[in-house]
Amino acid sequence: MSAEDVVNGIEAISLEKNPEDVCQAEGEDDYVDPWTVTSKSDAGIDYDKLIKRFGSSKVDDEILARLEKVSGKPCHHLLRRGIFFSHRDLHTILTLKEQNKPFFLYTGRGPSSDSMHLGHLVPFIITKWFQETFDVPLVIQLTDDEKSLWKDLKVEEAMRMARENAKDIIALGFDVRKTFIFSNLDFMGRCPAMYQNIIRIQRCITFNQVKGIFGFGDSDVIGKIGFPAAQAVPCMSTTFPFIFGNRKVQCLVPCAIDQDPYFRMTRDVAPRLGFPKPALIHSTFFPALQGAKSKMSASDQNSAIFLTDTPKQIKSKINKHAFSGGRDTVEEHRALGGNTDVDVPYQLLKFFLEDDAELEQIRVAYSTGAMLSGEIKKKAVETLQPIVEEHQKRRKLVTDEILNEFMSLRKLDFS
Amino acid sequence: MSAEDVVNGIEAISLEKNPEDVCQAEGEDDYVDPWTVTSKSDAGIDYDKLIKRFGSSKVDDEILARLEKVSGKPCHHLLRRGIFFSHRDLHTILTLKEQNKPFFLYTGRGPSSDSMHLGHLVPFIITKWFQETFDVPLVIQLTDDEKSLWKDLKVEEAMRMARENAKDIIALGFDVRKTFIFSNLDFMGRCPAMYQNIIRIQRCITFNQVKGIFGFGDSDVIGKIGFPAAQAVPCMSTTFPFIFGNRKVQCLVPCAIDQDPYFRMTRDVAPRLGFPKPALIHSTFFPALQGAKSKMSASDQNSAIFLTDTPKQIKSKINKHAFSGGRDTVEEHRALGGNTDVDVPYQLLKFFLEDDAELEQIRVAYSTGAMLSGEIKKKAVETLQPIVEEHQKRRKLVTDEILNEFMSLRKLDFS
Repeated sequence: MSAEDVVNGIEAISLEKNPEDVCQAEGEDDYVDPWTVTSKSDAGIDYDKLIKRFGSSKVDDEILARLEKVSGKPCHHLLRRGIFFSHRDLHTILTLKEQNKPFFLYTGRGPSSDSMHLGHLVPFIITKWFQETFDVPLVIQLTDDEKSLWKDLKVEEAMRMARENAKDIIALGFDVRKTFIFSNLDFMGRCPAMYQNIIRIQRCITFNQVKGIFGFGDSDVIGKIGFPAAQAVPCMSTTFPFIFGNRKVQCLVPCAIDQDPYFRMTRDVAPRLGFPKPALIHSTFFPALQGAKSKMSASDQNSAIFLTDTPKQIKSKINKHAFSGGRDTVEEHRALGGNTDVDVPYQLLKFFLEDDAELEQIRVAYSTGAMLSGEIKKKAVETLQPIVEEHQKRRKLVTDEILNEFMSLRKLDFS
Repeated sequence: MSAEDVVNGIEAISLEKNPEDVCQAEGEDDYVDPWTVTSKSDAGIDYDKLIKRFGSSKVDDEILARLEKVSGKPCHHLLRRGIFFSHRDLHTILTLKEQNKPFFLYTGRGPSSDSMHLGHLVPFIITKWFQETFDVPLVIQLTDDEKSLWKDLKVEEAMRMARENAKDIIALGFDVRKTFIFSNLDFMGRCPAMYQNIIRIQRCITFNQVKGIFGFGDSDVIGKIGFPAAQAVPCMSTTFPFIFGNRKVQCLVPCAIDQDPYFRMTRDVAPRLGFPKPALIHSTFFPALQGAKSKMSASDQNSAIFLTDTPKQIKSKINKHAFSGGRDTVEEHRALGGNTDVDVPYQLLKFFLEDDAELEQIRVAYSTGAMLSGEIKKKAVETLQPIVEEHQKRRKLVTDEILNEFMSLRKLDFS
């Protein structure tokens, strides 16, 4: 009896956590689903509670130590600083690595604007680190179909944005020999395995289930109802026969925690189709400039630092909009110190200032009142300006030809 | 403002008929949806009532006369005999023809068994007649995705059956220069326009609507919920850019009346995407050998005459299983005559005996009692045996190469 036989006729799947718990538990201050993230607290989402609610595991010292041991190098600062704070089955991936068995990376982006912002880079930065550390193939999905369904976007427009965003992703320095980038609205029509696996997945999931997991209702369009299968399907390695042949290879998905519902669903379906459950590593949200009550959003110009912003714009946005954890007066600040938990300039440094010692210095200076609000803002500006400028330089070099190469169906180079 | 702009944000579509009315009106004896057809009456479905319930138009003498005038030749016997009894916008198609404007034909089949039965040929026979009469391109969809979702069928198995069924269809004599045959599980991965148009359609239809039209429920799998868009999409000519470029060409769909719900839905969506509403011509159901209370079904061996049956099997099935409208004794039959309305051998002749005069002779003889039940069965056997034998001969000539040619993406030959 094959895995597919097992599937036929089975309608109910048991979710890892009760789906009703997922978005917002009663009496909770935080709301998290793939489309909305809000918190009533200035410090943002309570991530420890989220781990409990989602039923994932904490990225703790033990797994970081194991990661360093297996990789033979220090963990990336996004790991060290708890920004990637939660995981599922990361130990399984490390065991595979120890046993010299293959796995691959899968991450993605929903292209809803021409320009990505700083927060969008976070999953790609850690993905690149994992790829370089473990020398594994990587597939990057651009969900232009999702954006066409959810946003007021024409198919052609969503596809154009997907290509623009792909150039920003490539500018991070991914290795074309090991990386395949695809947009759903394009790739679906170039590889029959994608739709075939989607049908296999869509045969395992009822409306009741996506209702519970994603909060869909009767007045939602049928495209939305079917879409979760499109985000799930890259976890099945046979979706990419030109890379994996018909081998069923384990995958690791770095993503922000709001994407977890898709993969909880996928982890239920995968074994029924004979695939390993995808492993996950989840990041916290990148805060809006206005503070951690919401995440940085491309649809609000003032909430975000875009990868197309000029040094002047970056300076002005941080000075004008970045929520401060400083005190009302200099005197008070000197006496009591600032609050790094809610201070957005400090949070930006935590994501983007690589030097641990310098960051710790800043933390101490700011929270004791030695460093003023204007000074930490200046530091954030000076840290981000060159990062964005460098990015813009590299992005200019990404031609349509290079993009087409990343998006072409081909073998990837890995052992 | 483009057609797509009109779509965005609109959730409700006004159906041509109240969807609740569709499957079974209260107090009615007939049940009709794409998966089930049953009637409490021996004479089968009341088709006049169905026309009223579905809101379609009767194929009456006036439209047949116009069809003969425009085509310059007599109507096919399946039209003359009221087997294609209902239509939507057939007048529009005839007007296009008069104005020398293009249209195309679209029909299909859900491949759920290796062998097709006689009833499956009916839409293809009339489609071939329309194609030859009007010299227009034809696309034939094999919904192997649907069968994989609804039946206990693996993806590979459904795709294999699609190819087997396509050979039977080709054996009817379609012109490869004017005909494109495709299976969804294959074509979706070979032509990006298909998925792009599906997303455009799926963005216009809510779960509430497919619930009303098809009777889907919360425990149905999401593949089923999304599928109607896959059957709708060939009505949009841009799904086949290699045939139509980006022209939005009107289409005519010959099909059995149970498929109408898909196209009622499509007719609501098409104008919102800038396409003409598909025109339709509907056939009655091909009766099961056991009688017109249900339709011939490939899943019940004894209900169907398969295209693979031997002359002996055909004879034995008709003699053994074909429901008779004859009387209990010869004496009674001679005195009162048989009932052609419920007599399956007579119905088979009505579908497959081309000679009108001979059919009328048989009808008179049988209903006056001059012809006995055994005699009309013999006539049915003798009519069907050579049709099936000839079909088998032609099917043997359909090689994989010929099939691949029909299924290859290419320009079709039409003016």
